[in-house]
Amino acid sequence: MESIKVFAPATVANVSCGFDVMGFALDNPGDEIILKKRNGKGIVIQEITGEEGKLSNAVDNNTATVAIQSYLNHMGENIGLDVYLHKKMPLGSGLGSSAASAVAGVFAANELLGGKLSRDELLPFAMEGEKLASGDYHADNVAPSLLGGFRLIRGYDPVDVVQIATPENMWVSVVHPAIEINTKEARGLLNKEVALKKAIQQWGNVGGLIAGLITEDYGLIGRSMKDVIIEPVRAKLLNGYDAVRQAALDAGAVGCGISGSGPAIFTFNPDEQTAQKVGDAMQEAFLTKGITSNIYCSRINQQGAVVLG
Amino acid sequence: MESIKVFAPATVANVSCGFDVMGFALDNPGDEIILKKRNGKGIVIQEITGEEGKLSNAVDNNTATVAIQSYLNHMGENIGLDVYLHKKMPLGSGLGSSAASAVAGVFAANELLGGKLSRDELLPFAMEGEKLASGDYHADNVAPSLLGGFRLIRGYDPVDVVQIATPENMWVSVVHPAIEINTKEARGLLNKEVALKKAIQQWGNVGGLIAGLITEDYGLIGRSMKDVIIEPVRAKLLNGYDAVRQAALDAGAVGCGISGSGPAIFTFNPDEQTAQKVGDAMQEAFLTKGITSNIYCSRINQQGAVVLG
Repeated sequence: MESIKVFAPATVANVSCGFDVMGFALDNPGDEIILKKRNGKGIVIQEITGEEGKLSNAVDNNTATVAIQSYLNHMGENIGLDVYLHKKMPLGSGLGSSAASAVAGVFAANELLGGKLSRDELLPFAMEGEKLASGDYHADNVAPSLLGGFRLIRGYDPVDVVQIATPENMWVSVVHPAIEINTKEARGLLNKEVALKKAIQQWGNVGGLIAGLITEDYGLIGRSMKDVIIEPVRAKLLNGYDAVRQAALDAGAVGCGISGSGPAIFTFNPDEQTAQKVGDAMQEAFLTKGITSNIYCSRINQQGAVVLG
Repeated sequence: MESIKVFAPATVANVSCGFDVMGFALDNPGDEIILKKRNGKGIVIQEITGEEGKLSNAVDNNTATVAIQSYLNHMGENIGLDVYLHKKMPLGSGLGSSAASAVAGVFAANELLGGKLSRDELLPFAMEGEKLASGDYHADNVAPSLLGGFRLIRGYDPVDVVQIATPENMWVSVVHPAIEINTKEARGLLNKEVALKKAIQQWGNVGGLIAGLITEDYGLIGRSMKDVIIEPVRAKLLNGYDAVRQAALDAGAVGCGISGSGPAIFTFNPDEQTAQKVGDAMQEAFLTKGITSNIYCSRINQQGAVVLG
């Protein structure tokens, strides 16, 4: 194989109460990457599109190529690779843009070398790429983008990624307003200490959300989708959040939260029709604040990264 | 009906990572209470056995009668009641002794009045009794003792008790060493603030434990049974805990933790035989420290409080 084209999906991390431990993949949007073997050695970024010039072409400053390099080092490979990265999703959106690039890169490189490692084995290299963007090792975006599905990152020592079953007919709608939030800055606002009382509330909700998803109990899912620690801080950065959330719930959403560090906002819904209606209601609510937005609707993506050609 | 005899089971709360939000009931030990209608008004404690004179006969200073009084007040009843409380379980054990008394009392009173309220509706009155012992409203012991099963207290505003399915063949073994720990004092040792990093570890484990229980994944249950916040503090009060825990795991336990605020220690096991073996190993480990102990083995009790006659 001389070249390969791969898609890696956008992801919603945190999922209300599950800061740093939960994430799931969307059918769209996502990143496409093309890798072409080249005579000689080393990785060269030949093209990046769809990001309005915001990403670096330096190989050591792009999550896709950092992830690829980390993988190639581990495999003892030093082939020449030309990289074409097509961002088909917004940057700084809270939808795991950097993770999707890292996953697309490492998944494509592994396929190009004949699929020597399993998906699970690729996770550390994708996390290495993601680290460039978030400043630390996180798997709550890269794991679902790579593996698909709803993933609980139970722990990091060692990394323990658990697939959580979700209601078959559940649809997600996401609204992405035209506001940019920097992940590192957003993390910097968080207190390093939390009140035990609030931590207890949070892990009660985490238990409830996991139980609700597995047992398809929408009532329990909705009651559990409360983040008493992170979201109150992040909502302050997100003009109109309370109104948009209320509009979503009024339109029939099971629950609503900030996706990652925002500004995207996600909802769970009992069916496709409600997801569309809820998406429209959120877009409308942002518009009354003078903020334009995009809507994405999909089931929870179960495939993760896929080869396009 | 002129008199009634009720049993309410002991309970294991916290369940490793689930401080204040998880608990389950045991088949044994537990409390028995007899209520007899008497001419006139007011509650009188006629007898308490099995507690070596440690409990008060004052109606406003006993969890059973406080719970009964709270129930009778709500129902607008002012009948005469004689109370006979038989503690068939250790006090200050971490096995929910005060909760079992409160549950037995309120469940018996309701049955005596013809079962006017449902089990769920009795919960607030049992919590009122429990408050006398723990100093605050908690449901992680009273809910499983009253309702049976493994219960997640998702939240308190309003009280939201969720039943969690558990593996059918799972057996619990509990060792209760001859040490007494006061619940209020044990709670007083806890920091009111926790590091966000540790809180994240905790809620990752909470999610993993709930998922593992529902999907009968013993590996995940075991990996998730880590408490990085409460147990390190409480283990200091509990001479020999580390050795006992290790002995339990070596003997085949799926996981091991302190029951409530201790000193009882509980384990989950894949079958009855292992539970017995693990119980023996824990008892042996305490004996090498010169500490005697009792062992209790049972499935997770699914009935909760029951009428004995």
